Amino acid sequence: MEKPYVVGIDIGGTNTVFGVVDARGTILYSGSAKTGKHADVNNYVDELANGLEGVIRRVGGHDKIKGIGVGAPNGNYFTGCIEFAPNLPWKGTIPLAQLISEKLNGIPVTLTNDANAAAIGEMTYGAARGMKDFIMITLGTGVGSGIVIGGNLVYGHDGFAGELGHVITRRHNGRKCGCGREGCLEAYASATGVARTAREYLEIRTDESLLRNLNPDEIASKDVYDAAMKNDKLAIEIFEATGTMLGEAFADFIAFSSPEAIILFGGLAKAGDLIMKPIKESLDQNVLKVFAGKTKLLFSQLKESDAAVLGASALGWETKEI
Amino acid sequence: MEKPYVVGIDIGGTNTVFGVVDARGTILYSGSAKTGKHADVNNYVDELANGLEGVIRRVGGHDKIKGIGVGAPNGNYFTGCIEFAPNLPWKGTIPLAQLISEKLNGIPVTLTNDANAAAIGEMTYGAARGMKDFIMITLGTGVGSGIVIGGNLVYGHDGFAGELGHVITRRHNGRKCGCGREGCLEAYASATGVARTAREYLEIRTDESLLRNLNPDEIASKDVYDAAMKNDKLAIEIFEATGTMLGEAFADFIAFSSPEAIILFGGLAKAGDLIMKPIKESLDQNVLKVFAGKTKLLFSQLKESDAAVLGASALGWETKEI
Repeated sequence: MEKPYVVGIDIGGTNTVFGVVDARGTILYSGSAKTGKHADVNNYVDELANGLEGVIRRVGGHDKIKGIGVGAPNGNYFTGCIEFAPNLPWKGTIPLAQLISEKLNGIPVTLTNDANAAAIGEMTYGAARGMKDFIMITLGTGVGSGIVIGGNLVYGHDGFAGELGHVITRRHNGRKCGCGREGCLEAYASATGVARTAREYLEIRTDESLLRNLNPDEIASKDVYDAAMKNDKLAIEIFEATGTMLGEAFADFIAFSSPEAIILFGGLAKAGDLIMKPIKESLDQNVLKVFAGKTKLLFSQLKESDAAVLGASALGWETKEI
Repeated sequence: MEKPYVVGIDIGGTNTVFGVVDARGTILYSGSAKTGKHADVNNYVDELANGLEGVIRRVGGHDKIKGIGVGAPNGNYFTGCIEFAPNLPWKGTIPLAQLISEKLNGIPVTLTNDANAAAIGEMTYGAARGMKDFIMITLGTGVGSGIVIGGNLVYGHDGFAGELGHVITRRHNGRKCGCGREGCLEAYASATGVARTAREYLEIRTDESLLRNLNPDEIASKDVYDAAMKNDKLAIEIFEATGTMLGEAFADFIAFSSPEAIILFGGLAKAGDLIMKPIKESLDQNVLKVFAGKTKLLFSQLKESDAAVLGASALGWETKEI
């Protein structure tokens, strides 16, 4: 009999959340583990496996689970390893898929990076159902991407394709990026990028803004959003500048794979029209004529709190039974 | 019995060349037709079909031909149409695959753009044999590209993916491009782009150069190459600037699909190390750390005079027998 459930695990720098998911994309039982407190990955896997056993038992045990999908920063689909993830406590190459599988009676475990997991989730349960060609852009602390072409996720020859947060969007005087280079899209169009733009605007401009009431060092993208919703001109311009850069970058992405849609996901996507309107305008101005008006710009349809687990769990259906 | 031959047709703005090709990639018989002189596409197809009948007869007639592949500017793989090709005499949408097939007893005809045909040729007969993930960059009058991911050519949702000559490489004060926008890679890194760079350098600089002996309006990329081979400093710098921009762009392409190789083809690729060395240096400087040193930079292994026909012909093997 076909095994009826999968497990999704989303690994973040601080917390790991997981859940048992059925074929319709309902999270039946969920739990969490602390990522950040385990300097030794074996201790982490012990805590995680304990939690997983708990939720798996509630649906009838190991035999009911077709596979486990993991979304993790710098996760490599081909090797099942996390490789040199700057925001996780474990250094070097960690064979995480294998470690988890060994603790769970050999249930197959498939791993990919978090943005790829989000793309698979969107294709399985969300706005990309039925689409063969789309790009998922995650606008969170960083800018991530999952690219789907011909119905398949693009992993590249080494498993690391789809780093669209690190295309260079400003070649001269670009902002320093966490990757060590300058001018990456992520340095501008992430939540932290928006906060940096706010600090920059406040310093070089003199006009009034609600943001001037805040300690510049503590401004977050949420503050910029709140100010913009109160019609603060400077805050609105920050979203316009951010959207403009995203639209410019999207025009180049479309020249690459001509997707049916680009789908936005993550904290910054919650700004809605504040960010989508300038993206659309900028894309229309910058896109090559042959692609004009062809690519839909959409928001993710996955409930944000569930999306990461659902996306990872969708990978579980892909796993082959051993 | 399996049909033993295919036909490849390469349509350029002035001339069309075609040939009958066997399974090992040998062009057995070839011929040509005039593209530019036929304002009416039906007259063009008549001339082309006449020529094709001649070479097909020599290998034993229609029954020996598995399929016909066509590489044409703005050719759409999905529809078999040429759509709004600025360098061809026929305006609007031309159902060329159908027109050719009708004249040739219903032999299946598959059409794509010229850079995609080159990529398929390279994968079937050239430097990309055995590769699943690579990008073909054609450096000719323009800059074209054919992208292969997971062993399949990337067509996108509309058949027009892979316009990497039109990513924006200079966002401010960019050169006017033939596509109507500014700052496209093609405006710098094509043969015409190199000639433009030469004119620009000669105008704004004062140092000596062999190129000053030429009429600036008539300088071609070949002249810049000849001067560079004579150790002309300004000419060498033109290739360095061109290669640097290509390397910057390639770093972004790698962030997208993480290919095993990027393969250069076309007139400018004949500059060899003059262009490859600065590309490599620039790529190493600009590529995201996780991809450093992973992507091979190669020249096409197809003999240039045959490559276009071979590339198109490789599409013929893909066609389904009707």
